[in-house]
Amino acid sequence: MQGQKSVSVLITAGGTREAIDAVRSIANHATGRLGAAIADAFLQGGARVDYVCGEGAVLPAFSGAAVTVIRDVAQLTETLDKLLRENSYDYVIHAMAVSDFTPHSIGTAHGMAERLGRELYGLQLSEEALTARILSVLLGGGEWKTGGKISSQTPYLMMTLKQTPKVIGRIKAARPGVVLVGFKLLSGVSEGELISAGTGLMEKNGCDYVLANDLQEISGESHQALLLGPGGVVGRAGTKTEIAQMIFKTLTEKADGKGGKMK
Amino acid sequence: MQGQKSVSVLITAGGTREAIDAVRSIANHATGRLGAAIADAFLQGGARVDYVCGEGAVLPAFSGAAVTVIRDVAQLTETLDKLLRENSYDYVIHAMAVSDFTPHSIGTAHGMAERLGRELYGLQLSEEALTARILSVLLGGGEWKTGGKISSQTPYLMMTLKQTPKVIGRIKAARPGVVLVGFKLLSGVSEGELISAGTGLMEKNGCDYVLANDLQEISGESHQALLLGPGGVVGRAGTKTEIAQMIFKTLTEKADGKGGKMK
Repeated sequence: MQGQKSVSVLITAGGTREAIDAVRSIANHATGRLGAAIADAFLQGGARVDYVCGEGAVLPAFSGAAVTVIRDVAQLTETLDKLLRENSYDYVIHAMAVSDFTPHSIGTAHGMAERLGRELYGLQLSEEALTARILSVLLGGGEWKTGGKISSQTPYLMMTLKQTPKVIGRIKAARPGVVLVGFKLLSGVSEGELISAGTGLMEKNGCDYVLANDLQEISGESHQALLLGPGGVVGRAGTKTEIAQMIFKTLTEKADGKGGKMK
Repeated sequence: MQGQKSVSVLITAGGTREAIDAVRSIANHATGRLGAAIADAFLQGGARVDYVCGEGAVLPAFSGAAVTVIRDVAQLTETLDKLLRENSYDYVIHAMAVSDFTPHSIGTAHGMAERLGRELYGLQLSEEALTARILSVLLGGGEWKTGGKISSQTPYLMMTLKQTPKVIGRIKAARPGVVLVGFKLLSGVSEGELISAGTGLMEKNGCDYVLANDLQEISGESHQALLLGPGGVVGRAGTKTEIAQMIFKTLTEKADGKGGKMK
């Protein structure tokens, strides 16, 4: 730890969900157990912890974290902007599984086919112009928008989803001096691909560290992960508790001037 | 209650979620609080309760229910088929919010536009034939299917969803003699529309009763609902506990030959 001064950390955990209508949503599964374990490591170490998590996420077992529960990417963005504006953190550990996409439009597949048929019938276009016209219809909005409840009396729905703004990109923009830990979760890839994707996330969003892990290597408490830092892999862990300890030690020992490598 | 013989009831509660890929799903929000309250009313009344609920649903506060947790419609169907085959229930109370749609195909909007452009370019079709061709392409499957994790590096996704088989329709088919209570949840409709939709559900699926409610009339424990039965509205309630008591009394008093009307 940094001598007398208490460490201050912002940790996100769990997942977000984007509303499709009043009763349905697209959710990113995430229990929040890893984020909670990391929060516990910092709480045990005497840190001040702000913990932002999705609905239903596991909370830290140790007391003392200031918890904010959010539902969707918009609420997450608003909450992080406010916390980053009002607080000076030493570390931000962004473990939350954030929805990459949010519903843009929705309708029946039959309705969309009829709309396209109407719009395209009789047109004499090059393939390129035809494709561009089709794309503009596809993205032009469906028969009904979010709100109320979609009728279940239709055989096929079509939904378009648009990319959400990358929340992680806002962190260094707001607080350039903070030490940022990003998370990269892939599924069924080689270690090389995992390192490459994690390094990409690090460079793109100004992360100082990235915890890279593979869904296929996670089962209950068993949780294989690599910690990427300046210069490559700086640590490996096999359980959530080990990951939490690895992140805590790597960050706080670096702050002590002992370097960022794992012991 | 029915003299010495204990009442046996199957109650479903909570919501289902359909996987989009390894980390995302479409979920129906439902806390399971209403189903749990109904289970509690029956447990208090000495009934044997089988409780089938979605992940994370509230469980009955009273002990003694046999609980099965399911994730998606396929698991729900399998579980209900097995329970209905192996048990003779007096009542089935199907309070679960079941996903009406499940992912059918997914891909990028650009990929779909290109595919349609390729397929349609140079065709001389009537508007009707064009529309039919478009529909077959739209429903023909996207670039990638469920499994693994979808890349977030695309501005727009398109997803087609297909209707799930109606689980409620299987109950009377398996056990014609059971008393079946269905649930109809709408959003922001008049009482007339609610009664009409509830009556429709009753007729279509052979429900003996339908609890009809409106999302706009639900807030915490406050929960306005109508119980529809033979001949129309047989009860009204304003809280989850009142709904649970209303259903319990209506069913068990009817079984005693006292008729299905509320006192």
